[in-house]
Amino acid sequence: MNRRKFNFGLLGTAGALMLRNPLAIPISRDSVPPVRVNGARLSDHLRALAEFGKNPQGGVSRLAYSEADRRGREYVFGLMQQAKLEVSIDAAGNIIGRRAGSGDNRLKPLLFGSHVDSVPEGGNYDGDVGSLGAIEVAQTLAENHLTTRHPLEVVIFQNEEGGLIGSRAMNGELTEKELDLVSRSGKTIREGIRVLGGDPAKLSSVKRDKGSIAAYLELHIEQGGILEAEKLDIGVVEGIVGINWWDVTIEGFANHAGTTPMNNRQDALLAGAKFIEAVNRIVTSIPGRQVGTVGRISALPGAPNVIPGKVVLSLELRDLDAAKIQMLYQKIRTETDQIAKLSKTTFDFKEINVNIPAPTDPRIRSLIDQSAKELGLSTKQMPSGAGHDAQDMARLAPVGMIFIPSVGGISHSPKEFSKRQDIENGANVLLQALLKVDRADLN
Amino acid sequence: MNRRKFNFGLLGTAGALMLRNPLAIPISRDSVPPVRVNGARLSDHLRALAEFGKNPQGGVSRLAYSEADRRGREYVFGLMQQAKLEVSIDAAGNIIGRRAGSGDNRLKPLLFGSHVDSVPEGGNYDGDVGSLGAIEVAQTLAENHLTTRHPLEVVIFQNEEGGLIGSRAMNGELTEKELDLVSRSGKTIREGIRVLGGDPAKLSSVKRDKGSIAAYLELHIEQGGILEAEKLDIGVVEGIVGINWWDVTIEGFANHAGTTPMNNRQDALLAGAKFIEAVNRIVTSIPGRQVGTVGRISALPGAPNVIPGKVVLSLELRDLDAAKIQMLYQKIRTETDQIAKLSKTTFDFKEINVNIPAPTDPRIRSLIDQSAKELGLSTKQMPSGAGHDAQDMARLAPVGMIFIPSVGGISHSPKEFSKRQDIENGANVLLQALLKVDRADLN
Repeated sequence: MNRRKFNFGLLGTAGALMLRNPLAIPISRDSVPPVRVNGARLSDHLRALAEFGKNPQGGVSRLAYSEADRRGREYVFGLMQQAKLEVSIDAAGNIIGRRAGSGDNRLKPLLFGSHVDSVPEGGNYDGDVGSLGAIEVAQTLAENHLTTRHPLEVVIFQNEEGGLIGSRAMNGELTEKELDLVSRSGKTIREGIRVLGGDPAKLSSVKRDKGSIAAYLELHIEQGGILEAEKLDIGVVEGIVGINWWDVTIEGFANHAGTTPMNNRQDALLAGAKFIEAVNRIVTSIPGRQVGTVGRISALPGAPNVIPGKVVLSLELRDLDAAKIQMLYQKIRTETDQIAKLSKTTFDFKEINVNIPAPTDPRIRSLIDQSAKELGLSTKQMPSGAGHDAQDMARLAPVGMIFIPSVGGISHSPKEFSKRQDIENGANVLLQALLKVDRADLN
Repeated sequence: MNRRKFNFGLLGTAGALMLRNPLAIPISRDSVPPVRVNGARLSDHLRALAEFGKNPQGGVSRLAYSEADRRGREYVFGLMQQAKLEVSIDAAGNIIGRRAGSGDNRLKPLLFGSHVDSVPEGGNYDGDVGSLGAIEVAQTLAENHLTTRHPLEVVIFQNEEGGLIGSRAMNGELTEKELDLVSRSGKTIREGIRVLGGDPAKLSSVKRDKGSIAAYLELHIEQGGILEAEKLDIGVVEGIVGINWWDVTIEGFANHAGTTPMNNRQDALLAGAKFIEAVNRIVTSIPGRQVGTVGRISALPGAPNVIPGKVVLSLELRDLDAAKIQMLYQKIRTETDQIAKLSKTTFDFKEINVNIPAPTDPRIRSLIDQSAKELGLSTKQMPSGAGHDAQDMARLAPVGMIFIPSVGGISHSPKEFSKRQDIENGANVLLQALLKVDRADLN
């Protein structure tokens, strides 16, 4: 598979020579040293991390704030120390590994990282690849005695899967009220922060100001099947999609399924079925990568011999363009009015959550693309359909995200898998892009 | 509302005279005495029974085997004694009130009755009207010193709402295994039978042989809205519909709602929605009174941000004609194959329960219709979409059922309501039909 091999030819003879003595590499603003991560070591680290919260049937349950999470983070903390980072835990419970820069003291830090908590019955790649990839990049820089201009910070965000808690603490969006919400571990977020070594009373110390960070980079698995299906190596993320979630309540009239003639029913589930079909039809009626999902449904009273009188279901729309989400929503509302009329039911939409789209920085996108191509890797510009800590960091700084293929597009599952070579490729792109961003003037 | 008044004119002068001295009524096989129930007393009894298990917000919860059921039955037992019936509780817990006949000793008993248990949060008419109506008929016969040829048995079946338990004990279908099922009261049926004064060890004594009963008559509320909508007084039930219930499991593939493109989904809920729509379309595509219902649905994993990978839903089809149910089911299966193919899902149908249709006896239907018309009441032949104890009795004897209007077609609800005049009409039709059946030779 030549497409996944590095193209050292691009580096020329000088590059090949330089590899023998990294200390001698001249760092200029136009070219970055042709250093490479240690793919075997990265694989070993991923395997070792997979032990924490390992499930007998495969995959991992490393819920934020669980014992598995605490112990997994201890392991990661150790790796960061081995990578010569100055490691600490901030008041929110994020692990931060610092590395001084060589440049002007006023240069802002360059952040990169991901998370190591998982969903219940999750896999070993979502978050892990980006976290251990970032640490591997730091280790590679240390081993090659390379110092960036900007100070570096490797960040392992806490509780990404439970609502991007660590990165939301960093951008100041995490509220006092949320601290008392119970996470999937059974602990409140406030208790969880203490378990991780943070201090919920000092959250304000975690907050970064807008413009105080040079850039944020994150490597992640795609979690979709596009790169694999199109036989591509690297996804250059255009942004994290906006997510709008409504709960929709449909009221009909519960009645006896035997004695109520078909033409005299107010069947909330039949109306719900027509709604689900309409959502799918409307979302797929225009070109683009928007998605629309009804993932949750309940019908009451819920007996085989009673016509459902009430249905509650979720509607989720995602796209990079908030205006497109609104346009789709309006089309759905219009069609819903028709369904309600014909089925003698009523629909009520309650907005539960809105994540506005978070575009990545076009200059960073270009540097990621360039880095991948110099490594001989094929690329595709694509949105991230999933939420990531990068979306919170985008409120503070220019961000970039690098995707690697997910086999079968499966994620949040023990079946989640990315190939070793793809992981190594992703870490090398992260390393090269980081060095390029370090040398660019983004601010 | 003239249509609900009795037409005494039909009885002629002789009838009017006879009313003054019922003892003088000549009982012939061609005409029955023009006796009438006491509608005010029947209303009083219904009101009194409504106190047992009364809910503060209206209606009643008189679950079989509950304390409310036990005490309600005590009240009913007393009414039956007042009606000069020889009252006992059989081994299954059914209350039986006997009245001797005047005819040949070999004449089989004529049974009539209903049930007094309710669904949770039920109403005061389903079962109660037929039970207290039957007792009122017996009381009227006693007061008028009328003796039928056949011995009579008023039967108050136990636990109709939880699976026709009392009538299934009588036709021998109740299995030992079922006795250990937990009823909605929290007690097993075995324990419940003891609470009611029965003896689960002696159930075989309850079983009646096929052909050992002259006929069974039951008065009941329609539970649908047809009689009310068509402004009719009495429904002459053509039979109790067959009920086929399947659980349908749809398997797709659970995946991330953000990262899985629309054209790459195996959405079990979208397939389920198309199924629900297809069931409705197919059931309503041919003329007739058949009904099809999806009353229960669950979608897994059931999160707004995950495409459902598995859906389980119920499919229930009802009709008087078992062949029509099968025909509709086959049409649904054929369309399901298409849905499965297009949505890349699989459907599995599991038959949970089959109640075969139970037609009523055409001769009894005719006698009910004649009785109603002689009382100046309008009638309609109609199926019973709901199950009743009569369907079990139909395995043993010719049966007949009399429906009265349900306001708004609402049933199994505190809003269940039938007008006083309609209840009185129904009891008078029961009385007249009983006397006609008594004088007819059905066997």
